Amino acid sequence: MSPLINNLSSIVQGILLGNRRAISKGITLIESQNSSDRVIACQLLDKLLVIKKQNNASSIRVGITGSPGAGKSTFIEALGQYFLNTLSKKIGILAIDPSSVISGGSILGDKTRMQTLAQSERVYIRPSPNRGHLGGVGQGTKESILILEASGHDLIFVETVGVGQSETLAHSMVDCFLYLQIPRSGDELQGVKRGILELADLVIINKCDDSMEEAGKRSRQELLNALSLTRNLPPDVICCSALTGLGIAESAAAIHAFVERQKQNGFFNKRRKEQIHNWYEQGLIEEFFFKMKQHSNFNLLMQQKDLVLSEEKSVRSAIKKVLDSIDFK
Amino acid sequence: MSPLINNLSSIVQGILLGNRRAISKGITLIESQNSSDRVIACQLLDKLLVIKKQNNASSIRVGITGSPGAGKSTFIEALGQYFLNTLSKKIGILAIDPSSVISGGSILGDKTRMQTLAQSERVYIRPSPNRGHLGGVGQGTKESILILEASGHDLIFVETVGVGQSETLAHSMVDCFLYLQIPRSGDELQGVKRGILELADLVIINKCDDSMEEAGKRSRQELLNALSLTRNLPPDVICCSALTGLGIAESAAAIHAFVERQKQNGFFNKRRKEQIHNWYEQGLIEEFFFKMKQHSNFNLLMQQKDLVLSEEKSVRSAIKKVLDSIDFK
Repeated sequence: MSPLINNLSSIVQGILLGNRRAISKGITLIESQNSSDRVIACQLLDKLLVIKKQNNASSIRVGITGSPGAGKSTFIEALGQYFLNTLSKKIGILAIDPSSVISGGSILGDKTRMQTLAQSERVYIRPSPNRGHLGGVGQGTKESILILEASGHDLIFVETVGVGQSETLAHSMVDCFLYLQIPRSGDELQGVKRGILELADLVIINKCDDSMEEAGKRSRQELLNALSLTRNLPPDVICCSALTGLGIAESAAAIHAFVERQKQNGFFNKRRKEQIHNWYEQGLIEEFFFKMKQHSNFNLLMQQKDLVLSEEKSVRSAIKKVLDSIDFK
Repeated sequence: MSPLINNLSSIVQGILLGNRRAISKGITLIESQNSSDRVIACQLLDKLLVIKKQNNASSIRVGITGSPGAGKSTFIEALGQYFLNTLSKKIGILAIDPSSVISGGSILGDKTRMQTLAQSERVYIRPSPNRGHLGGVGQGTKESILILEASGHDLIFVETVGVGQSETLAHSMVDCFLYLQIPRSGDELQGVKRGILELADLVIINKCDDSMEEAGKRSRQELLNALSLTRNLPPDVICCSALTGLGIAESAAAIHAFVERQKQNGFFNKRRKEQIHNWYEQGLIEEFFFKMKQHSNFNLLMQQKDLVLSEEKSVRSAIKKVLDSIDFK
């Protein structure tokens, strides 16, 4: 039996009832590298998927990225409260830790910056350490989304800092992707350069408090100009202040309108299907290489790579050599 | 023995001597799907690589893309002649056929549009049908480059129409990537939108003949503006006319200067190594799926994909099921 779980159905029941301990245990289970834990994790996820489908549970997944200091946590705090008071029953907040993408460590998930939300019975906050390899980096967060949805969370926030591939990763698991920046930060064109604004479904200029309101408006106009150059359908740009409440209702409305539009033209389901499809294919490839690593095939893989890079062997021969070492059925 | 080749060393010798029949036979061999041909193709490529390395043969690979009607063939005709008269001993011209990327057919490689070059003893022109799967789409062209280089071609053009992934593909195998457009074609910003200008090392505004010279200059300025928004080191933009000869010498000099700069700062070798590395990894993945297809594993792969897409099974369980069907060693 798995070291973590001695009664799978009680965990499943607990998650369905929204029990916080059960949810946490479920997420810990899917993050475990222990091989018997991993067998049970498959069973847990399969069961939750079936039940989620039976219940016809629906949710909205919102990704939020931006440079450090853009005020992501305070923005989620303000926006989350607005949603709790209006549209959402329960909110789940997850984080993709960019350090895990790079080094395997953990820096995000600072609950202290979302104090009000953290105290609510209807909010579940958990940073995802993403240590797992299976199904690729970010699988921990994707599977945590499933667990939170099965336990009745109908709005999921996925927060990430704009570093490396963590933004693309967050984008690959949400229905609506928000990019936060501050007024006159010089980010306007940097963003375009770095390609992040290609991914954004909505841009928020945060910290437009008091003296920064005019600067925010100018930033908004510059951004709209830049976006109109690079996008056929430029996203909305909204001036916000998590502090004064400016633009929070407007942001919530924009997210809601975007999702409704996506649902009406069929893009909502299409995007989710594509996300699952990519997850499956990428996961298969990453797990394939992981399995190679566990076997002697991996030495062969590296040895052939060296021969190819030093141009002593053709790519074609090297690939043949590697795959000849595997038995297909 | 392979149906195509009954004497491998005579083909190798022929290719090294620059014999056109031997070159054509070599390219036909690497494009063959016949399984014994494929074994011999590995041997041919390995032999050529070793000899190429011994000879310390160097070459420049230039990719050329642009919309239909941008005048790619006439531009290559003019530029090729200039290089033949100045820097290059022998030129090889290959094409990536976008239809092959999509459907497996063949539309490019119209020698009649490069009449003068086609008649030269020092030029070898061949469209690459790219039917092969092994090592991924484009492998036929990549391997043809090796054959042409082994036979003494020191300048290789890879032409493609700007459709789908054929541009990225061409970019993945050249040292210098050219984007051609015509004056005032409205392409200026389209190009930025489609991301192709992110890849270009040099931009050519072709067909700046007579009355279009002023329009060409305006297009050049607009492009430079757009490029400065999206690139840290914007590429040169050169006005050309393959008809009048305007800008042809300048284009050749710009290619030469770009390559020299790349060599001096080490990017030339770095880019080639990265290209080989990606070719190896991508090829391995594509060949892995191809092998799956040949075995019963493939039914399993598709069946599990369907279960995942209909959300009846978790991605994690499906991947486990598929990879459990393969024996690693």
